[in-house]
Amino acid sequence: MPRYKLTLEYDGRPFRGWQRLGDGPSVQQALEEAVFAFCGEATRVLGAGRTDAGVHALGQVAHLDLSREAAPETLRNALNHHLRPQPIVVLEAGRVANDFHARFSARARQYRYLIVNRRAPLALAAGRAWQVPIPLDAEVMHEAAQRLLGHHDFTSFRSSICQAATPNKTLDRLNVVRHGEVVEITASARSFLHHQVRNMVGSLKLVGQGKWPVERMEAVLEARDRAQAGPTAPACGLFLVEVDY
Amino acid sequence: MPRYKLTLEYDGRPFRGWQRLGDGPSVQQALEEAVFAFCGEATRVLGAGRTDAGVHALGQVAHLDLSREAAPETLRNALNHHLRPQPIVVLEAGRVANDFHARFSARARQYRYLIVNRRAPLALAAGRAWQVPIPLDAEVMHEAAQRLLGHHDFTSFRSSICQAATPNKTLDRLNVVRHGEVVEITASARSFLHHQVRNMVGSLKLVGQGKWPVERMEAVLEARDRAQAGPTAPACGLFLVEVDY
Repeated sequence: MPRYKLTLEYDGRPFRGWQRLGDGPSVQQALEEAVFAFCGEATRVLGAGRTDAGVHALGQVAHLDLSREAAPETLRNALNHHLRPQPIVVLEAGRVANDFHARFSARARQYRYLIVNRRAPLALAAGRAWQVPIPLDAEVMHEAAQRLLGHHDFTSFRSSICQAATPNKTLDRLNVVRHGEVVEITASARSFLHHQVRNMVGSLKLVGQGKWPVERMEAVLEARDRAQAGPTAPACGLFLVEVDY
Repeated sequence: MPRYKLTLEYDGRPFRGWQRLGDGPSVQQALEEAVFAFCGEATRVLGAGRTDAGVHALGQVAHLDLSREAAPETLRNALNHHLRPQPIVVLEAGRVANDFHARFSARARQYRYLIVNRRAPLALAAGRAWQVPIPLDAEVMHEAAQRLLGHHDFTSFRSSICQAATPNKTLDRLNVVRHGEVVEITASARSFLHHQVRNMVGSLKLVGQGKWPVERMEAVLEARDRAQAGPTAPACGLFLVEVDY
């Protein structure tokens, strides 16, 4: 059976997350229904990252098998047609080898987290950024972020419902940069624990507002205790930007 | 009566435009209702730019008079409270002299127009950019844009319902830059004719796709004939970014 790779953009707001759970609209279900509408096949669409409710994607990757060949461009256009008016778009579709697996073949995942650091609420970025009214020092946040790089036990930043076999992960990049009122955090790793990015952001925010000294970040990491880290940052600020193979 | 200046951000999608017209929700009406809810005064809120239906603002400016003094921060917070859940936000409120006029005192207005230049429809930027599937050459668009700078009769780029006393305007800046799949057009002038930015963008798009040579832009300008210019670019890509005094 021919296998296809899809690169996807979506607005996470109307969905219960990537995964089909049976209790509300999911991105996976919307895609599977679009495939069915296109060719009548009930196929599984497997994603690289199981984004949570409200988390967005600029470059999620998924794969699916079809029983018959379809021109990639036809597949892309047909899925986009059937996905309408839901805010999910197939950016690219391509034929891949049968051992390609969106989730297990991924070498790196890139996430972006956006904070709008201002007193006023959000009009244009509502639902697509975390509005933090307390002034944040992005430079000390970046300094604190560097303390998390490398191979560690990330238990302190792991959701209690995380199903990963091990809490050990290698964090390759965690940058914090300010552009005007926007504080942008970019994270890169082969894979992340459940809520890891949002939990790291929640702690960095405490450093940025001066509540925690930079050194506290290492102490939290070493504690291997979720209770030591900051609260989970809201889903709306998180974007799955890219998956590399 | 004390006069106040408001700096506003709004998502233009749910509104019939800035101006209260009696046939649908307007930004002006939403603000006037929020002022009334705050202090019981039926006051007029006058904007610097009468943005059309679907046009967004990152920094619209307006002024209003109140019969009693209010602390600017109190005014801002109260209006934001009463504007909720409409996507209009008061970024700043400040006390100004009584001869300040949001529209007539403005020295310059800055607009931004966003084109997402790709085949796939928009998920995250839907309603906030113009999706153009044909590849655009931003460099030749920029070159063509430079032909419009200066003091001219902009009749060719003027809406038939424009109420300006004269079609003569001075265009100070019209830049076209590509960032990845986004083509960003920035325009600056003391003031613009009705639909002028969107009509200039509609013509620049024809240059960018290779349908018009760069020189055609001058010919269109000199023709002083709306029929010579390209179609009006959609409202959703336009943002009023800043008003300078």
